[in-house]
Amino acid sequence: MAKQVIVFDVNETLLDLAGLEPRFSELLPAGMMALWFSRMLFNSAVATMSGVYQPFDQQGIDALVTTGLGAGIEISEEEARWVVDGMRDLPPHPDVEPALEALQDEGIRMATLTNSSRSMVRDQMGNAGLARYFEKLLSVESVGEFKPSPAAYRHAASSLAVGISEIRLVAAHAWDVTGAIRAGALAAFVERGRARLGPLSEKPDIVARDLTGIASSILAH
Amino acid sequence: MAKQVIVFDVNETLLDLAGLEPRFSELLPAGMMALWFSRMLFNSAVATMSGVYQPFDQQGIDALVTTGLGAGIEISEEEARWVVDGMRDLPPHPDVEPALEALQDEGIRMATLTNSSRSMVRDQMGNAGLARYFEKLLSVESVGEFKPSPAAYRHAASSLAVGISEIRLVAAHAWDVTGAIRAGALAAFVERGRARLGPLSEKPDIVARDLTGIASSILAH
Repeated sequence: MAKQVIVFDVNETLLDLAGLEPRFSELLPAGMMALWFSRMLFNSAVATMSGVYQPFDQQGIDALVTTGLGAGIEISEEEARWVVDGMRDLPPHPDVEPALEALQDEGIRMATLTNSSRSMVRDQMGNAGLARYFEKLLSVESVGEFKPSPAAYRHAASSLAVGISEIRLVAAHAWDVTGAIRAGALAAFVERGRARLGPLSEKPDIVARDLTGIASSILAH
Repeated sequence: MAKQVIVFDVNETLLDLAGLEPRFSELLPAGMMALWFSRMLFNSAVATMSGVYQPFDQQGIDALVTTGLGAGIEISEEEARWVVDGMRDLPPHPDVEPALEALQDEGIRMATLTNSSRSMVRDQMGNAGLARYFEKLLSVESVGEFKPSPAAYRHAASSLAVGISEIRLVAAHAWDVTGAIRAGALAAFVERGRARLGPLSEKPDIVARDLTGIASSILAH
């Protein structure tokens, strides 16, 4: 266990995307946030599969503009950027800080690994008051491929100077856990809200309702 | 132009996904179809990015089960399969057959290239009465990577014995057009309903409201 490093996904896993609703609902009904986020993720996958890197916030702007058009609502790139910039100031879920404290108290190494850009994750962790828990704030921007590309998880391992099997990716997204496990890492799935692993998901050895449960399992392993 | 082959995407481009609404709405509100379809696409991208191939209908089942859980509705894999199997019997959009006729009359070579499985695309084209227009019904199942992976478009070119720059992918999805162009193919975008290219999309030299317009532009090129 000495060399294991816990690597946290950021959006939804640590930070509450519901904090974006006030800005989002200025442009589109809040009920469309899930569709927008899914399309932002798919956009990012399209970029990586077709060999191009365009930052996550640009993927979000593109997804917002096209989701608006699909709903018959014209949204300018500037308006969309204002919404996406709101991701820089999301509150942490209430279970996050106690869990990070508990892990830090035991001397566990921790980092983030996010599809957000380097600039965005720095703002996010600073605004949420979480930066002090992490040895590094890693972003896929450094490798130019979005999660779940194996290159993203390998980047985390090499940046933290451990083998891929020595990082444990903690995420509230089944696809992120699946990608990490297929890349050779350990993982833990947070069943945040109604998020659940699907029939095709890889099944990690740690699953819990919140980060408190995840931290307890990690410390008991 | 002699060697150019027109390669059609299937779902939404040729066939009307709205035909799935009666089955879908037995399990979830019809308004969630866009979210489900986006997640099916992202699931498929996750599979390809993490080096695994699991057929498109399985991706659809997984996305339906987890979208149900997110809405607080438990859906069994059997119920989800019944919905996804409804994709085998979708009606063509009304502009499709006249456009395919016009292209066939001019001796244009045509094929399909879909993320659907081989079995599904055979059923789809048979049930829609469109099979006779196509030299080949190509599926990404033969290459084991979903569009927009470049391997999928290269597979189409090699199966049709032409260079990648001699196929023109016709699709109603910005991401498919983008993937084809980045792989080195030509493309044409159908602005079906409210579908539009986004700020990050590659811009093809042919864009039209329906397949009649696409066919006219192809014949005029």
